[in-house]
Amino acid sequence: MRLLSRNFLVAIITISSFSLNTVLAKTLNDEQLKTIEQLKQATLHSDLSYQILESLTTEVGNRRLGTQGDKKAIKWAVAKMKALGFDKVWTEEVESPQWLRGDIEAQIITPYTHDMAAIGLGGTVGTPQNGIKALVVEFKTLADLKAAKKGSLKGKIAFVSYRMKAAIDGSGYGPAVATRGSGASIAAEKGAVALIMRSVGTDNNRIAHTGMMRYKKDIKKIPAAALSNPDADVLVNTLKRGKPVAFYLKITAQHNANKMIKSASVIGEITGSEMPDEIVALGAHLDSWDVGTGAMDDGMGIGIVLATAAQIAKLPQRPKRTIRVILYAGEEVGFYGTRKYMELHKNEVAKHVIGAEWDFGLGKIYQIKAGVGARSLNSIHDLAQILTPLGVAMSDKNDAIAQSDMSLLSKAGMPSVSFAANGMRYFDYHHTANDTLDKINPDDYKQNTAVYTVFAYFAAQANVDFRQ
Amino acid sequence: MRLLSRNFLVAIITISSFSLNTVLAKTLNDEQLKTIEQLKQATLHSDLSYQILESLTTEVGNRRLGTQGDKKAIKWAVAKMKALGFDKVWTEEVESPQWLRGDIEAQIITPYTHDMAAIGLGGTVGTPQNGIKALVVEFKTLADLKAAKKGSLKGKIAFVSYRMKAAIDGSGYGPAVATRGSGASIAAEKGAVALIMRSVGTDNNRIAHTGMMRYKKDIKKIPAAALSNPDADVLVNTLKRGKPVAFYLKITAQHNANKMIKSASVIGEITGSEMPDEIVALGAHLDSWDVGTGAMDDGMGIGIVLATAAQIAKLPQRPKRTIRVILYAGEEVGFYGTRKYMELHKNEVAKHVIGAEWDFGLGKIYQIKAGVGARSLNSIHDLAQILTPLGVAMSDKNDAIAQSDMSLLSKAGMPSVSFAANGMRYFDYHHTANDTLDKINPDDYKQNTAVYTVFAYFAAQANVDFRQ
Repeated sequence: MRLLSRNFLVAIITISSFSLNTVLAKTLNDEQLKTIEQLKQATLHSDLSYQILESLTTEVGNRRLGTQGDKKAIKWAVAKMKALGFDKVWTEEVESPQWLRGDIEAQIITPYTHDMAAIGLGGTVGTPQNGIKALVVEFKTLADLKAAKKGSLKGKIAFVSYRMKAAIDGSGYGPAVATRGSGASIAAEKGAVALIMRSVGTDNNRIAHTGMMRYKKDIKKIPAAALSNPDADVLVNTLKRGKPVAFYLKITAQHNANKMIKSASVIGEITGSEMPDEIVALGAHLDSWDVGTGAMDDGMGIGIVLATAAQIAKLPQRPKRTIRVILYAGEEVGFYGTRKYMELHKNEVAKHVIGAEWDFGLGKIYQIKAGVGARSLNSIHDLAQILTPLGVAMSDKNDAIAQSDMSLLSKAGMPSVSFAANGMRYFDYHHTANDTLDKINPDDYKQNTAVYTVFAYFAAQANVDFRQ
Repeated sequence: MRLLSRNFLVAIITISSFSLNTVLAKTLNDEQLKTIEQLKQATLHSDLSYQILESLTTEVGNRRLGTQGDKKAIKWAVAKMKALGFDKVWTEEVESPQWLRGDIEAQIITPYTHDMAAIGLGGTVGTPQNGIKALVVEFKTLADLKAAKKGSLKGKIAFVSYRMKAAIDGSGYGPAVATRGSGASIAAEKGAVALIMRSVGTDNNRIAHTGMMRYKKDIKKIPAAALSNPDADVLVNTLKRGKPVAFYLKITAQHNANKMIKSASVIGEITGSEMPDEIVALGAHLDSWDVGTGAMDDGMGIGIVLATAAQIAKLPQRPKRTIRVILYAGEEVGFYGTRKYMELHKNEVAKHVIGAEWDFGLGKIYQIKAGVGARSLNSIHDLAQILTPLGVAMSDKNDAIAQSDMSLLSKAGMPSVSFAANGMRYFDYHHTANDTLDKINPDDYKQNTAVYTVFAYFAAQANVDFRQ
């Protein structure tokens, strides 16, 4: 269906590309329209973004903030930007207290023994050295856990069994991730000795999903872990029998508050030929979780924004505005790179004429959402028209902010677009050991890259103030 | 498509069930035809097999021969047969030398570091205590490894990167599994210190596939492990760079040749009312690999054959012949239960009038294959006609043997049928930690159970000698 419809639309654009010139004349001139069409076609037929992603996942692998992988990733990114013809490349250092994941053991011990595939949530404390043995109390939702009486979980392990729903726009994430973020402290307030939860994920593999959690101030810090979804099923089925269910959990995670670890965002530019101070910002995050190879999250984004800049750098001349690629440090563990960027560039936000990040989706982009001035919205409609043959429709709202890290720039006033990519299967792999190169469909990935390339060139050439 | 076609066929059978009586009169009488139709409908609307499977996967879990899980499985099976109304239940003991899996660590160490998801092949020896560090030599197929010169792999790790193909009938298994079975000794003959291989599996999860391997006599025994498919991809991509690739492998597996471990097949009967000595044999294997919960392999088979007998036991009277359910011990590690059965019942093979096992597939049954006498083949066509509304077609060959364990009875002369179930996704989970209850589609599973129930009742009532 998708493929048919795309071919059909490609046919239409081929037929109608002359008439487009008239429609779009107000934003881009004929020469620029010709170039953007050539860029689009070249990107659709190039595997550059995939090559970059293959390089990252093979030569670097996972790269949580401050780990050896992260250090390799920084070197890799600097070298890659230089090799791809960027005009400027620099790093912006960040630092963070050290957290070590350690190991995990999780097991149902009575009434039946089952080893559980589990992973510690990011930032969890460890258990006592001999682990914790305690009875399990199930809550179907975080709201149910919140409703439990204070003290009612004394000495127990709280288990939230909420099952995340898959959706094209990832809208199932919010309701599911709340437990990951705040569940441990809520359970601790009720007296629990640990929190375990069904993974925030839509797959049925024996691979658990990690992700950041936070402790509330002045509440006892208890260990927190996610079970793979099939393991959560086994626990639910065991609890259904109505007998007491004892669980063993051992986590050797460690916080070293006094040991600071260093990392850096890596930033590169294709310098504008006429308005070098005006920046079209493209973002992705350099770090990943410490499992898998971070292919999808956010290797895909890295490949897209690097290939976008590289394709444009191959043109005979630089576009008018600067294209700045920002590979942010430490997104997963707390937006380190973007907070540093906002600090260093707080007086230059106005120079960012428009921006977009890639940090969600595993499939084709189906929608462009604008967050620009009312007068310049027409230009985004012009852009959308160029993207229509790629299957991208225009959202009828104009309140978008850039994704993830770059949302901070949007909130500070940067006009933004957000491209909605199919996320139906994104949370099958999100924050897991299963986030590897094979999950990326090379054809979809070409479309993703073509969309960002068209956007970047369009924004760098458009005779428009996107704040207006 | 499948569903539409099935509903359509259900409609046909409802309309035409009267005319069927005429067609089938030679094999079953009107009363029996009415009963078989009721049985089919009852089974299609019953979740008994699923309940049994849920019980096994929750209360027992994995159960490799001689492990604690296996001991639990034997008790579980005896109790379950009694609870389901079997007339006789007994066990047949087997024993085997002990093999302990131990732990595994696998890692690419240069030029890039990657932790590998890996699993030892069943029966592998361990590595030296400090593991093995050696360069990797890739072979795309087992034939390529065989073609390597003697001594050419001295001190190296042989890596066979062959990728198994998915097929509805599982026909991709043969070409892939040969490396698992004999690859280690072939590699050892060339001087290799270990064998690693891409998993015999069609998924792309970070979960490696185990399964039995054998050492040739008088060849040095070297350790053998499978990498998950995404990990095999990383190794292939790393090797593509043309630099030396060093690998670390540590396996703590152990053979205790002098320590015998015990297990047992569990056998139960619904005793025939007129010809109790004539046996319709239904088989599945009780053991599983020691990862996952053995839901698919062969929990599905266990649920099907137990539910089949239980459904028939609920009828007001026993069918003429005995229905014998055999849950074989130790299929995975060497056909222990079936070899014992053949030894104990060698003079009773003639009593087995027909048999079928379930040990393959994860989806609907689409075909019935016969292996009966030429004259009785018409009766199997009559049976196929009853199964047509369930989407089951008749194979045009008459050379089938029963699956897996029960093939030994077939080869000894027992008439047999083999039901072909969709196996397109079977090898995504086969012999992995991912073989869990969630992989089984409850609707497909009802169809599977209905087919076996119809077969068993038909065979137990049919006025036919299937040897003729």
